[in-house]
Amino acid sequence: MLYGHGDNAYQYEQKIKGNFSSNVNFAGPSEALLKHLANFLPNIGKYPEVMAETLSCQLSEYEYINAMVTNGATEAFYLIAQAWTNCKTLIAIPSFAEYESACKVNKHTISFVKHAELKHINFSDYQTVWLCNPNNPDGYIFSNSQIENWLNTYTSTLFVIDEAYIDFVDGMNSATLLIKHHSNIIIIKSLTKKFAIPGLRLGYILSQKTNLDRIEQIRMPWSVNSLAIEAGKFLINNNCIRISTQNKETNALLVKTLTEWSLQ
Amino acid sequence: MLYGHGDNAYQYEQKIKGNFSSNVNFAGPSEALLKHLANFLPNIGKYPEVMAETLSCQLSEYEYINAMVTNGATEAFYLIAQAWTNCKTLIAIPSFAEYESACKVNKHTISFVKHAELKHINFSDYQTVWLCNPNNPDGYIFSNSQIENWLNTYTSTLFVIDEAYIDFVDGMNSATLLIKHHSNIIIIKSLTKKFAIPGLRLGYILSQKTNLDRIEQIRMPWSVNSLAIEAGKFLINNNCIRISTQNKETNALLVKTLTEWSLQ
Repeated sequence: MLYGHGDNAYQYEQKIKGNFSSNVNFAGPSEALLKHLANFLPNIGKYPEVMAETLSCQLSEYEYINAMVTNGATEAFYLIAQAWTNCKTLIAIPSFAEYESACKVNKHTISFVKHAELKHINFSDYQTVWLCNPNNPDGYIFSNSQIENWLNTYTSTLFVIDEAYIDFVDGMNSATLLIKHHSNIIIIKSLTKKFAIPGLRLGYILSQKTNLDRIEQIRMPWSVNSLAIEAGKFLINNNCIRISTQNKETNALLVKTLTEWSLQ
Repeated sequence: MLYGHGDNAYQYEQKIKGNFSSNVNFAGPSEALLKHLANFLPNIGKYPEVMAETLSCQLSEYEYINAMVTNGATEAFYLIAQAWTNCKTLIAIPSFAEYESACKVNKHTISFVKHAELKHINFSDYQTVWLCNPNNPDGYIFSNSQIENWLNTYTSTLFVIDEAYIDFVDGMNSATLLIKHHSNIIIIKSLTKKFAIPGLRLGYILSQKTNLDRIEQIRMPWSVNSLAIEAGKFLINNNCIRISTQNKETNALLVKTLTEWSLQ
């Protein structure tokens, strides 16, 4: 689905006071990051690293598992769908429309299931299962014990789990720790939502090496631009990724702003 | 081919005085462009346009034919190879390795031909033919009359012509004008070489609408980041793309620098 996603204010002529059409940190990008990127700008005269290798290594160290940096989480969805082309796929709905688009482009046979009906599903009928956790748009959360149970029961099914919005749920644990003992899980994360940098395009994939190798076989070089890579390095080197107090501050700012607009 | 392309100085520990491992304008990015992008930086808090529509329209007006902006010319090669997946393909060699990689990933049956042997080829045996014009690495140039002759003779064969380096040949005419009367030609251009902005990733495809529609069907949203889009708009709005005197200035700078290094 190329259109209809939100944050597409450029397609409308009206003046927009507040844009709630996408789920990006309301506080905007940090001044420190913007200043760092401004100083880095002359480096656009060089090619970016072919596979954003240095940042991938840094994220691997941070996450304690193999990481592959992508051109936004969206490139991750399309790469995974292409690496497992032409298979039977189940998508839990309602959710982000790009799972379906990526799988359609890559000739998957797609079925859909509502969250409430998941307990009746025999996942062994599918080669890939796509879940958004926490779910966009309804905030539904799959527990890690539920996910681990599926991984153990359906060892021939690949579970693709999109954790793009995990930073917006205080205290929610990533399923990342499950990767070490399970080859049938891929997790996608995004750095653009929490840090409000969607214009840069920066996401990453976490999985066992065998899955990342399969994806690397089909990907193009230089898909992640130099500024996105540099932003990721800055956020890691300044320990920004671990900060968890931001949600409370952002929520307070949101309530304050809505109150000022008499929209609370 | 993910590695082995050049401009990969980050993989070496030695101090590098001059980097000639990629064919990018020796003068580097312009100060005016860097200043403009520095002012634009706070806008990375918004998503880029889904398909870089505004810049695509501007390039269409500039080129007098339908344009589609891509995440570097490399995304163009992979998209074209995917849109014409699984076909018989001929690649003129020696040339840029990514044509082969893009076609391999998308299951083409690939043949290769040296430039000197092209005159013996029956192109109707192939669904796509890939040419680099002027050719990287040897500077070989196909004339537009030669290309037009092929387009007229082999109407069922799609000619994919990479003009990424055309700006480095003074007085060379693009084959763009042939698109109006031929549906079997796609031209790829790059803005990163002439303007020395490879870190941003910015290229575009020119072809008849039916071919661009076929490519749009399979592409992901937001593949081109906000700064690349803004750079393209700046270069068009400031009429930079039409400037042709730059090669002489750059050549003079190159000779001066090599002389200073006693390497002329």
